[in-house]
Amino acid sequence: MTTTTSPSSEQLTMLGSRLDVFPVIVEELLDVLNAESMPEEVIEWYRHNLEYNLLGGKLNFGISVVDTVEILRGKLLEGEEYRKAAILGWSLELAQACFLIADDIMDASITRHGRPCWYRVEGVNNIAINDACMLESGLYQLLKRHFRKESYYTDLLELFLDDRVDLSKFSLERYRLTIAYKTANPSCLPVILAMYFHGITNPEQFALAQKILIPLGEYFQVQNDYLDCFAPPEKLGKIGTDILENKNTWVISVALQHVTPAQRKTLDENYGRKDSECEQKVKEVFAAVDLETKYKAFEQVAYRKIMGLVETIPAEGGELKREVFTAHLSKFFGSSTCNW
Amino acid sequence: MTTTTSPSSEQLTMLGSRLDVFPVIVEELLDVLNAESMPEEVIEWYRHNLEYNLLGGKLNFGISVVDTVEILRGKLLEGEEYRKAAILGWSLELAQACFLIADDIMDASITRHGRPCWYRVEGVNNIAINDACMLESGLYQLLKRHFRKESYYTDLLELFLDDRVDLSKFSLERYRLTIAYKTANPSCLPVILAMYFHGITNPEQFALAQKILIPLGEYFQVQNDYLDCFAPPEKLGKIGTDILENKNTWVISVALQHVTPAQRKTLDENYGRKDSECEQKVKEVFAAVDLETKYKAFEQVAYRKIMGLVETIPAEGGELKREVFTAHLSKFFGSSTCNW
Repeated sequence: MTTTTSPSSEQLTMLGSRLDVFPVIVEELLDVLNAESMPEEVIEWYRHNLEYNLLGGKLNFGISVVDTVEILRGKLLEGEEYRKAAILGWSLELAQACFLIADDIMDASITRHGRPCWYRVEGVNNIAINDACMLESGLYQLLKRHFRKESYYTDLLELFLDDRVDLSKFSLERYRLTIAYKTANPSCLPVILAMYFHGITNPEQFALAQKILIPLGEYFQVQNDYLDCFAPPEKLGKIGTDILENKNTWVISVALQHVTPAQRKTLDENYGRKDSECEQKVKEVFAAVDLETKYKAFEQVAYRKIMGLVETIPAEGGELKREVFTAHLSKFFGSSTCNW
Repeated sequence: MTTTTSPSSEQLTMLGSRLDVFPVIVEELLDVLNAESMPEEVIEWYRHNLEYNLLGGKLNFGISVVDTVEILRGKLLEGEEYRKAAILGWSLELAQACFLIADDIMDASITRHGRPCWYRVEGVNNIAINDACMLESGLYQLLKRHFRKESYYTDLLELFLDDRVDLSKFSLERYRLTIAYKTANPSCLPVILAMYFHGITNPEQFALAQKILIPLGEYFQVQNDYLDCFAPPEKLGKIGTDILENKNTWVISVALQHVTPAQRKTLDENYGRKDSECEQKVKEVFAAVDLETKYKAFEQVAYRKIMGLVETIPAEGGELKREVFTAHLSKFFGSSTCNW
């Protein structure tokens, strides 16, 4: 095996303990091309695409699928069952990777997960669009191969397809705040996928989960906006572009509520200009209105709201368990790095 | 209704007689955004995207779905049944439009259907990637809304998802000839979709159809390669880019089999250079080896082969009918314009 990307030691630990199925899914996906006698060069390109784009991030979503199934089952997964849940987790990571590749092209981003964005890697460029399609196709190949006989197979297809809908709406950035929080958020998916995997079929249980997952997704998105602007790039793993790209984020919308007329003028003149001096002036206004304190306050309110909803689940648990949500939340809460 | 694209009179005739359901699907898709209280500006952008990208081409694939169902039924469709078959046709046109948008970006194409490619329309640019995602999402929204209760709903989802797989392989251009003809081709889809719609479930009937559709798809692809190089842009509706983009097409592969050493040198030095003088030199070699005659010969052989396979269908017909394939073939055979 040619390793073109070296996973970090943190990743290797996680891969070892949680997502050690990665080499298996890579070989399965490459076998699809092998079966069609594709030349070695094409197969190696696909391997490079898979390794670069799947092994860069924190893998939180994929890991959450397996963790959540184990919480619902009340025991650790083993053997074939573990392998299958992990494949579902990797399917989610494939969807995420595909979205991030396209998003980075559209935002003209520079880095992602501490390395150049895929479209900026030598020899890639606009072929990144095709590579993103290859990853998305891979996800549906995995689902077909491993889940076609399950009663919830069509539900899985629809979940992944609906998720795309929401993702594409996300990039209507000017209006994101108006709509994003009303709909599903990709951070909901690990829990919903795990519920199907566990065999939950009762619609009331899914409705209860959604009631908690929607504010959780909102919190997640606001955190993402905040970190894009305030986390140091070496921690964030990317250089935030929201100010340069004129994004309608939580940060700018809260800032606008608290600026003086003079500060407002500075924002009007400098926000959304593709110029680092303008960006610096915007950041000075953000510092002056003390967005950090406002963010911490938001975080506390969100946390209490989510925990309040979690407590509507009976402590002794039915099919759903409180720990599903507390464990999910703890992966993201108070994080100072990008969670994607 | 704000019409941002004027369909041609030929299109209007087809829309009138065959695909008059277009305004209905546009309103259904816009309603999804309306239901989420999206601002008018976003809705108008989506309308512009739908109209520009769906009303430019010949709509052959979409029309073929309805035509094929009528042949299988042995009568014209009416009312709700007509409407539903037309929606399936438009779903295929959505898939096609999405693919062409992405393909045009990757090939740096200039025009499509006689107008600028979508990514080159003022104000679009890289947002075209998101617009393509919106169209693809729309296709799955239509399928969910109109076909979710059908026994073949999961088959439809898999057909559209598998088609994406093949399309992404297509853009591995250097190797396209090695693999493309072994797998499905988008030109197969109208017939397969119509068979599901008609209620055919017997796998032997699908296998028989595929046996005819694969050489038909091969013919279709070779025609596409030939026209890219030899059809005048005003007829083709786009400026062919295969020579400039170093594509491995039927044209170059046949030319290489017939060149003199001097002509071979000219091709080696000029094929795949993004320079119109080089392109002209390549075209002179192509003319010298008389590719037109070779293409006409290929066309005749392909036609006889396909018709031979069609005759393996009993003349009195079982579920499948010969006319399904002869009608499908007649839409493309001998065409001198782009059929996408």
